[in-house]
Amino acid sequence: MTQAALPDVKVLVFDVFGTVVDWRTSIIRELESFGRERRLTADWTAFADAWRAGYQPAMDRVRKGEIGWTVIDVLHRETLERLLPQFGVTGLAESDKDHLNKAWHRLDPWPDAVEGLTRLKRSYIIGTLSNGNVALLLNMAKHAGLPWDMIFSAELAKAYKPAPESYRSVPALLRCEPSEVMLVAAHNNDLVAAAREGLRTGFVARPTEYGPHQVRDFEAAHAFDVVARDLVHLADLMGA
Amino acid sequence: MTQAALPDVKVLVFDVFGTVVDWRTSIIRELESFGRERRLTADWTAFADAWRAGYQPAMDRVRKGEIGWTVIDVLHRETLERLLPQFGVTGLAESDKDHLNKAWHRLDPWPDAVEGLTRLKRSYIIGTLSNGNVALLLNMAKHAGLPWDMIFSAELAKAYKPAPESYRSVPALLRCEPSEVMLVAAHNNDLVAAAREGLRTGFVARPTEYGPHQVRDFEAAHAFDVVARDLVHLADLMGA
Repeated sequence: MTQAALPDVKVLVFDVFGTVVDWRTSIIRELESFGRERRLTADWTAFADAWRAGYQPAMDRVRKGEIGWTVIDVLHRETLERLLPQFGVTGLAESDKDHLNKAWHRLDPWPDAVEGLTRLKRSYIIGTLSNGNVALLLNMAKHAGLPWDMIFSAELAKAYKPAPESYRSVPALLRCEPSEVMLVAAHNNDLVAAAREGLRTGFVARPTEYGPHQVRDFEAAHAFDVVARDLVHLADLMGA
Repeated sequence: MTQAALPDVKVLVFDVFGTVVDWRTSIIRELESFGRERRLTADWTAFADAWRAGYQPAMDRVRKGEIGWTVIDVLHRETLERLLPQFGVTGLAESDKDHLNKAWHRLDPWPDAVEGLTRLKRSYIIGTLSNGNVALLLNMAKHAGLPWDMIFSAELAKAYKPAPESYRSVPALLRCEPSEVMLVAAHNNDLVAAAREGLRTGFVARPTEYGPHQVRDFEAAHAFDVVARDLVHLADLMGA
């Protein structure tokens, strides 16, 4: 046990897609596996990237009020329905599409994630704080062995990050000061928005999250409270 | 592994006070310990029973709309403030009263609870479904070593059990059928209300919950889906 970097912090919440799990490798693998089984040919890597590229625009429709509150499972499914014909994949059964959509429930953790979280859990309350919905995050936790104490989700606040309400929901539910909560994320913009609500911030670089298409978040672009190489290093820095 | 009693059930949610933790023994111990430290004399057993006796009437004020949504931590504190002078305990500091109120965050599990839940967690999503607030339930989980996958609470639905909304919130967040969720409780009325919303039901008798004052819930009074002696026995019956 070393001295913790931030002695007032009692709770660590984590961005999930990209920060804790490697969505890109996992989704490509799921799509390729499905293609092999069904003898379907497509550019599955481009499919995975296009699916993820639809993520922020889909949430933007909710953020701008164009549609009412809609969970990520439904937004993922709408993007999937649009992409399948574009990539020449037709004639899938409802159960096939449901299976593909739930690939987002079966993402694999980065190699350091389970060890880092398991250590951090001994000294802190650890939870998600993701735009993913509760069902997705719970199923992922069971699949990937992520030992969360609590699933916090944009779904609980019905507000997608970076809306202030999404960050505020954690200290509100925990009846603690925002400064007792630290958001850990691989994305500068997420941490900047959390800091604006008084949360502490921890940056972990994931420079291969977007594969060859990564254009940002190679390093911390602001003076965050903690900057760690990975979640095991974060456990070192947090004295866990 | 034996055959599970209810193959469609994927999620087990648990009433907590009385079903998973022995609130009475724990609160009496906390009060007695505080009294010894401060050289205060009072009938601490009667104090614990009176504190718990204030629980349903306090929630009834919320249920009837006499006051807006108010979490259990606040209701417990209001009851505490009323009881202290009645039991001749005066002159406590704010920090003392906060420490006493958080005794409800430090309840000990029944002897079978951690082993039973740990086994059930291997095969099911396990969570709380308690009228306790999220902060209370999370702190209790850390104190008692309860390995929840998720903290479901009346606080998330802003409706105290047995209101239908409290039970419906679990399948709603999990995007599953009510019949895929089983409530486990030591209280017949809680299970009857859950069954009315389509949840499966598991009864576990806790005949010493109220000590010598127990007047009900010695046994299952209805045809619940599963009746177990304790949570280890429940794991046996559920094939976990």
